[in-house]
Amino acid sequence: AQQYRITLLSGDGIGPEIMAIAVQVLKVVGEKFDLTFEFQAALLGGAAIDATGEPLPAETLAQCKNSDAVLLAAIGGYKWDTLPRHLRPETGLLGLRAGLGLFANLRPATILPQLIDASSLKREIVEGVDIMVVRELTGGIYFGQPRGIFTTETGEKRGVNTMAYTESEIERIGRVAFETAQKRGKKLCSVDKSNVLEVSQLWRDRITTLSAEYPDVELSHMYVDAAAMQLVRQPTQFDTIVTSNLFGDILSDAAAMLTGSIGMLPSASLGASNPGLYEPVHGSAPDIAGQDKANPLAQVLSAAMMLRYGLNQPTAADYIEQAVLTVLDQDYRTGDIMSEGKTLFGCQAIGDALIKA
Amino acid sequence: AQQYRITLLSGDGIGPEIMAIAVQVLKVVGEKFDLTFEFQAALLGGAAIDATGEPLPAETLAQCKNSDAVLLAAIGGYKWDTLPRHLRPETGLLGLRAGLGLFANLRPATILPQLIDASSLKREIVEGVDIMVVRELTGGIYFGQPRGIFTTETGEKRGVNTMAYTESEIERIGRVAFETAQKRGKKLCSVDKSNVLEVSQLWRDRITTLSAEYPDVELSHMYVDAAAMQLVRQPTQFDTIVTSNLFGDILSDAAAMLTGSIGMLPSASLGASNPGLYEPVHGSAPDIAGQDKANPLAQVLSAAMMLRYGLNQPTAADYIEQAVLTVLDQDYRTGDIMSEGKTLFGCQAIGDALIKA
Ligand SMILES: CC(C)[C@H](C(=O)O)[C@@H](O)C(=O)O
Ligand SMILES: CC(C)[C@H](C(=O)O)[C@@H](O)C(=O)O
Repeated sequence: AQQYRITLLSGDGIGPEIMAIAVQVLKVVGEKFDLTFEFQAALLGGAAIDATGEPLPAETLAQCKNSDAVLLAAIGGYKWDTLPRHLRPETGLLGLRAGLGLFANLRPATILPQLIDASSLKREIVEGVDIMVVRELTGGIYFGQPRGIFTTETGEKRGVNTMAYTESEIERIGRVAFETAQKRGKKLCSVDKSNVLEVSQLWRDRITTLSAEYPDVELSHMYVDAAAMQLVRQPTQFDTIVTSNLFGDILSDAAAMLTGSIGMLPSASLGASNPGLYEPVHGSAPDIAGQDKANPLAQVLSAAMMLRYGLNQPTAADYIEQAVLTVLDQDYRTGDIMSEGKTLFGCQAIGDALIKA
Repeated sequence: AQQYRITLLSGDGIGPEIMAIAVQVLKVVGEKFDLTFEFQAALLGGAAIDATGEPLPAETLAQCKNSDAVLLAAIGGYKWDTLPRHLRPETGLLGLRAGLGLFANLRPATILPQLIDASSLKREIVEGVDIMVVRELTGGIYFGQPRGIFTTETGEKRGVNTMAYTESEIERIGRVAFETAQKRGKKLCSVDKSNVLEVSQLWRDRITTLSAEYPDVELSHMYVDAAAMQLVRQPTQFDTIVTSNLFGDILSDAAAMLTGSIGMLPSASLGASNPGLYEPVHGSAPDIAGQDKANPLAQVLSAAMMLRYGLNQPTAADYIEQAVLTVLDQDYRTGDIMSEGKTLFGCQAIGDALIKA
């Protein structure tokens, strides 16, 4: 049997509940496809702060590096929101991205026919939406230097961050985006703000140059403000989107919300080699933690992305995705995607239904 | 009669057509309310590039400074898109904002009951949407230094922009926002990315401190990615939003698109004193220029904002806004907001109907 070491970062809030379901599902899939998963748990975020005083203990990073893939649930919560920034759960996540060199974040936003009415947009606008946002994840303003709060000559404070990209950083994420588009609808829209920012100008130039190597992909460019508009106006115009860290943060969340069901959306963060990081788009939902109310499907679909992108087991990934569709077809729903005529299930009951499926 | 000198920047594309209607309307309003408008035309954007080689001729800036208000239509077009950035139409607009010290951009996004079906969002989601985005306009990453494309030690290019705010810049826009909220629903949401950016941390701190002076306004904070989501999910939760230049660029356009009719939306850009700049949110639409198809209503509503915010003539502003509603109630529509059962009118015909109304 093929053997994989998977680091599990259950994190905070609903994290442990939804992670438990994903592990149950992976075990069943492992038996079916003759894959052996060796799971090792590690601490990240609030859970790590409480136990060790740091959001990303060195041991966690070491364990992650020493594995084939990292499955993360969700981190954060009100409890840690007042800590200084270097001790906040999010800082642990940023450190993990940097530490594992995860420069490419794949964020699908797909409308499932079963859940189309969950969208706040009209059915005819969102029908068929199938967008992949490829977000640069280890550069740009998230990591640029100089940064900080400084005192000016006149004695007042000045906050500073730096948005910067080198050509090689742009090229690297550009290649992932073109290759992703090649496997999808062969349309790539690069989003920038090159009418105002020099860093975007370099971005646009490099992506344009790179496109010569991918003649089968149709490249277009859009300003970030226009992209925010067009996602709302006519989202089906997009296939694959590539953009910088900050713009990707905003646009991938906007795209996710078009579906109306962010409890369904997984993501993958990839580097030049394994391990990649796989996590749901939604947060840790501390208000419903421990009540068996959470929707585990994004977590389960993140495990499917792990199989597809990290472990090169596309058939096993398909199998999980099919089970999710079956459960939805059976009209089982957690509270976040509940609607009239459907059956309300808790987190574990959805897990049981998945395993049956 | 009260006398006002108004600089008219008709700009490019549909600019001259819609500006003509606004001027006709202002003349009628002037007679009615005993206001005399002295109009002086000046060049900005593509029109200025063609005539003088520069997007913002010194004479234009001087004329604007020497007036009580500046009314702008729209600038830009494919024709000038390949020019180097310092010669692009947008650069002229940025220079005008900086030159007039217009640090506060007011961007309303209001759903008119007559046009609710133009939205791509469901009726029940957008019904009653009435948001004012207060965007900082002369700071942040749009103007921060250092900026440019540099060569690194390894010989590759690196694009750099700087997102920076001082306390006084934050305080200044914060005051405008709190005062705007006081005149509206008394709810202010400050949008930042303080979980990642130091500049946002300073922003959040200053806005929070400032809120002590405005106890009647309920202040909340939201991350920019969450705000992009919430605008799509439940836009009625927002009253007034305050944010930085770049985030405001993105969010005000997203908010505008919720209405589905950006041909209806005006904006005001204000400094510490007059003149302010008043312009529609939409662009210059070169594809329909000169065909009498453009929707002049955003331009006319921009003239109303000028009367309200710049010339302190709220009754005259009300009068114009009422006329716009009347024309919509009469079911007259330009192509961009046309729907079944309405009457299709050209730009000038809408102008005539406004004047009758
Ligand atoms: C938690 C936060 C630091 C993070 C980000 O901004 O990248 C989150 O919003 C995301 O998109 O994964
Ligand atoms: C044209 C461009 C420079 C401008 C901006 O980004 O500010 C526009 O998008 C706007 O919002 O007024």
